[in-house]
Amino acid sequence: MRAGDGTTYELGGLTADIDGGFLAADGIARTAAALVAGELPRADVQGVRVGAPIAQPGKVVCIGMNYRRHAEETGATPPTEPVVFMKAPDVVVGPADYVLIPRGSVSTDWEVELGVVIGRTARYLESVEEALEYVAGYVVSNDVSERELQFRTAQWDKGKSCENFNPLGPALVPASEVPDPQDLGLRLWINGEKKQDSSTKDMIFGVAEIVHHLSQVMVLRPGDLINTGTPEGVALGQPDPKPYLRDGDVIELEIDGLGRQRQTARQA
Amino acid sequence: MRAGDGTTYELGGLTADIDGGFLAADGIARTAAALVAGELPRADVQGVRVGAPIAQPGKVVCIGMNYRRHAEETGATPPTEPVVFMKAPDVVVGPADYVLIPRGSVSTDWEVELGVVIGRTARYLESVEEALEYVAGYVVSNDVSERELQFRTAQWDKGKSCENFNPLGPALVPASEVPDPQDLGLRLWINGEKKQDSSTKDMIFGVAEIVHHLSQVMVLRPGDLINTGTPEGVALGQPDPKPYLRDGDVIELEIDGLGRQRQTARQA
Repeated sequence: MRAGDGTTYELGGLTADIDGGFLAADGIARTAAALVAGELPRADVQGVRVGAPIAQPGKVVCIGMNYRRHAEETGATPPTEPVVFMKAPDVVVGPADYVLIPRGSVSTDWEVELGVVIGRTARYLESVEEALEYVAGYVVSNDVSERELQFRTAQWDKGKSCENFNPLGPALVPASEVPDPQDLGLRLWINGEKKQDSSTKDMIFGVAEIVHHLSQVMVLRPGDLINTGTPEGVALGQPDPKPYLRDGDVIELEIDGLGRQRQTARQA
Repeated sequence: MRAGDGTTYELGGLTADIDGGFLAADGIARTAAALVAGELPRADVQGVRVGAPIAQPGKVVCIGMNYRRHAEETGATPPTEPVVFMKAPDVVVGPADYVLIPRGSVSTDWEVELGVVIGRTARYLESVEEALEYVAGYVVSNDVSERELQFRTAQWDKGKSCENFNPLGPALVPASEVPDPQDLGLRLWINGEKKQDSSTKDMIFGVAEIVHHLSQVMVLRPGDLINTGTPEGVALGQPDPKPYLRDGDVIELEIDGLGRQRQTARQA
């Protein structure tokens, strides 16, 4: 775990992994208490691979077309309720792992997104107002997408679950540390050139509405990840020839207060 | 584990659960060897709830519109390549657990399907011919679907991952015991009335083609479940008023050699 001052601490004494069981058992509060009590040993992470800050999400639910200007750039009518699709949970990787370009792919694209991690089981929530109480924290998520596969049939999922298609992290930031999830700037660069630059203010459905809505059609469980949609600036929205990812491209993305990712694209 | 003669055996000495790790570590072969050696104690399962025969699939991949006559009944053009969508893995339940009708639902539907459980990691398979070597076994699967949610937006997933929407079992039948997965009768009854009665011969894409195709667009891992599509006879395909599930309805389904499920529908 990395504290606000940049120091990294070892959580091995509290849990084997940051997963649904740990979050459901007040893991964040226990971590905070142990930190204050000085019980967490410092960790030396120099040169160590950083994994995703949640282990094995039970499901990864994605919201499509959820930024007004992204809906415009793709020519879509803004949805009147959240559009839901899924990523396979096993495509979640660390924030510095390779983005793999699938074999034969011609249109692998980036998507910076606010990731929401569920902390308590949410089932038929009664109101939007209570929904944020079910959120454990927030995380930077790259909802990598292969557009040709995504649109080859009417169902998008085929272009969303290729190997390594969901870099996540670096940190799961507790909800208590994020004053307003609808006021976060999010940005993405390719080879140093800024491609996406927006704010979660532009979301059509906010985090609370999404969590409430999903809880009516599925059970959200601790450790589940929700990718809340991407703003404008993806390769798909650019003029031809669209600048889809190529071997060696460097992808950097960040969200205010949640940290920064950096990946290199590599042919699978 | 239930042997061919109906006797149930205890696998606790071999594994804590039948999951991806067990299947990847030759679990089926070790079980068969232990059975032959007389090392498995008999289990008394009278009155015990039967769980799904695989624990915690990493992902549940579904193939849509994969029977010729089902494509006809729903008015769809038969697809030219597998249509892929996802169910959340946590909706997998046992073969006798309740099918829950979501609150507000008016169109909860049944779908008997041949379930395929992966036994070895499949990534960019070179040929259709080798694909069946990656299958651990077969299982009866009920791909329960809420049609109004499924079609409310263009993405089907919203109507596929409601609570308890994937009864699975009773048995994971090893691939070695299924001579031809493309020659299995499958049937479903509602309150004793036969609704679906077809054969996997009517599949548009067979199991080997599906496994090969999926391995080009995602990594299939041990324990993953593939629902291979449903034949004609779902409520959606009937004349109005369509006979969608109601509280108290009894759903029974079976596939040749794979056993039989029985669920009661109940309001969530």
